[in-house]
Amino acid sequence: MRILITGAAGMVGRKLIARLAKDGALGGRKIAALDLHDIVPPQAPVLEGVGITPHTGDLAAPGATANLVALRPDVIFHLAGVVSGEAEANFDLGYRVNLDGTRALFDAIRLAGFAPRVVFTSSIAVFGAPFPDVIPDEFHPTPLTSYGTQKLIGEALLADYTRRGFFDGIGIRLPTICVRPGKPNKAASGFFSGIIREPLSGHEAILPVPRSVVHTHASPRSAVNFLIHAAQIDGAPVGPRRNLTMPGVAVSVGEQIEALERVAGAKAVKLIREEPDETIWGIVKGWPTRFEARRSKELGFAAETSFDEIIRVHIEDELGGNIRS
Amino acid sequence: MRILITGAAGMVGRKLIARLAKDGALGGRKIAALDLHDIVPPQAPVLEGVGITPHTGDLAAPGATANLVALRPDVIFHLAGVVSGEAEANFDLGYRVNLDGTRALFDAIRLAGFAPRVVFTSSIAVFGAPFPDVIPDEFHPTPLTSYGTQKLIGEALLADYTRRGFFDGIGIRLPTICVRPGKPNKAASGFFSGIIREPLSGHEAILPVPRSVVHTHASPRSAVNFLIHAAQIDGAPVGPRRNLTMPGVAVSVGEQIEALERVAGAKAVKLIREEPDETIWGIVKGWPTRFEARRSKELGFAAETSFDEIIRVHIEDELGGNIRS
Repeated sequence: MRILITGAAGMVGRKLIARLAKDGALGGRKIAALDLHDIVPPQAPVLEGVGITPHTGDLAAPGATANLVALRPDVIFHLAGVVSGEAEANFDLGYRVNLDGTRALFDAIRLAGFAPRVVFTSSIAVFGAPFPDVIPDEFHPTPLTSYGTQKLIGEALLADYTRRGFFDGIGIRLPTICVRPGKPNKAASGFFSGIIREPLSGHEAILPVPRSVVHTHASPRSAVNFLIHAAQIDGAPVGPRRNLTMPGVAVSVGEQIEALERVAGAKAVKLIREEPDETIWGIVKGWPTRFEARRSKELGFAAETSFDEIIRVHIEDELGGNIRS
Repeated sequence: MRILITGAAGMVGRKLIARLAKDGALGGRKIAALDLHDIVPPQAPVLEGVGITPHTGDLAAPGATANLVALRPDVIFHLAGVVSGEAEANFDLGYRVNLDGTRALFDAIRLAGFAPRVVFTSSIAVFGAPFPDVIPDEFHPTPLTSYGTQKLIGEALLADYTRRGFFDGIGIRLPTICVRPGKPNKAASGFFSGIIREPLSGHEAILPVPRSVVHTHASPRSAVNFLIHAAQIDGAPVGPRRNLTMPGVAVSVGEQIEALERVAGAKAVKLIREEPDETIWGIVKGWPTRFEARRSKELGFAAETSFDEIIRVHIEDELGGNIRS
């Protein structure tokens, strides 16, 4: 089978590629070709017997998506997108990449007429405060960012194009991915990962919000599991509501820190410095806390069941099993 | 003040123009200019002291919306759109007019930078079955038509452009407009109006669904009232959720017929012929029945309170007060 991945150079894209390379198959079918697309050259693994082709460019450019789709992939993972902060700072860029790029891809598939499985990464950013205590699957999306708006429009297109039979789409709303590997960044959500990742490597981390803040997390490994599962499931039982809120672990920041102490000891916790930041707290206050995620669980999507497990996944996948604090 | 109306040649557009012409003012300000746009030449009334300019063309054509917006209207009523059946039959046309046309208009306003009030007519078609008994304001939109999808995308853009301060938008989700004047048409919803309008004019009407079917209606007069109210209300109390489900009268077809008998007598009711049509019933089954519409009522939007009243409005506004059955 042939697989196309957009956004292949991103964190989730790279982990998905590594997983597909390891498995060698998807849904019981041997992977014969991997097409990897991104705006920057994606890293392509060397795999015996698999034709791997990197593609670089702007999805919204004329003809770009038609070229990718001409290869008739059986499964398309559409991960490409400008992130939340960037889409907010640069209105034109966000709409160009997240809306025009997605629509161009969907339209190229429609015009090619071969109806592949399309897995689209949406986000819990489609939801905006105020929220009930637990957000049900039937709660209305009212995004408070341009990023969330663009993801919502992608979801609406995905559902309509699927209903029309142009492709067989599954949209997955990812919770916050934690523990995010790499260096600390300026994303407002960065501290959720920072307060775990940095102490585990012996570095100090800043906590800018109160410990009472509750949020839903899943590991990068779970994000890849969601993608693989979405590529494989039978579309019929999903019905016309193609966009699914993924499961995750809902915990307070205080509970995150208690889990860190259980897994890595008091020494790690001492590396967390509380430094309240009203701006970050102001942003985080508008974010969803807990999700019901009933439908996705019924359809077999699974995440970690405790924050301890999320920390252990990070230690296994990123630190070679070793805590350095 | 200057007012721009797109879709000015449509039924609601024409009634809105007649109302504005009669009032001579909107929100306490004298109307100095009316710009009327449609794909076909809109009928322009002659009004002393009001500069009325008809505009004809395709909103999605390059430069079309920039030209309209260069006139800097204080209020824009964006009513233009391809109807449900047409958007379903012609995929490209529906997306071009309902999505690209709307986005082109919104972007032209954004680039002109003068932040007018924009009133956008959305539809209860943003909702798709299955539904709870009463659809709350927080229920998720999962359209089952391309038209509903396009309206949902328009709503999402309206909310984001308003949040960004590009304009001050209010989206109003219209219930089924009843009694629709004019000739019977092939719309699946046509019978809701037909079983009232035709008997009141002494003609036979076909009822293709069981009398137990429940649906929500508002008169054309109420639709115009919604538009006028949406143009005038203070935007601040609306908050970031800019799209509002309008109130209406939820009745069964049986209750519609009972109201007809109360208003026009048994002779009128005898003109309704039951001729079950499985295709139409199949479509109507997927439609929403009752809405909570709590927010719109709190914000002062009002419709009729009984179906008898809806019939009387039709007799007053369309039949000069006379029943002909």
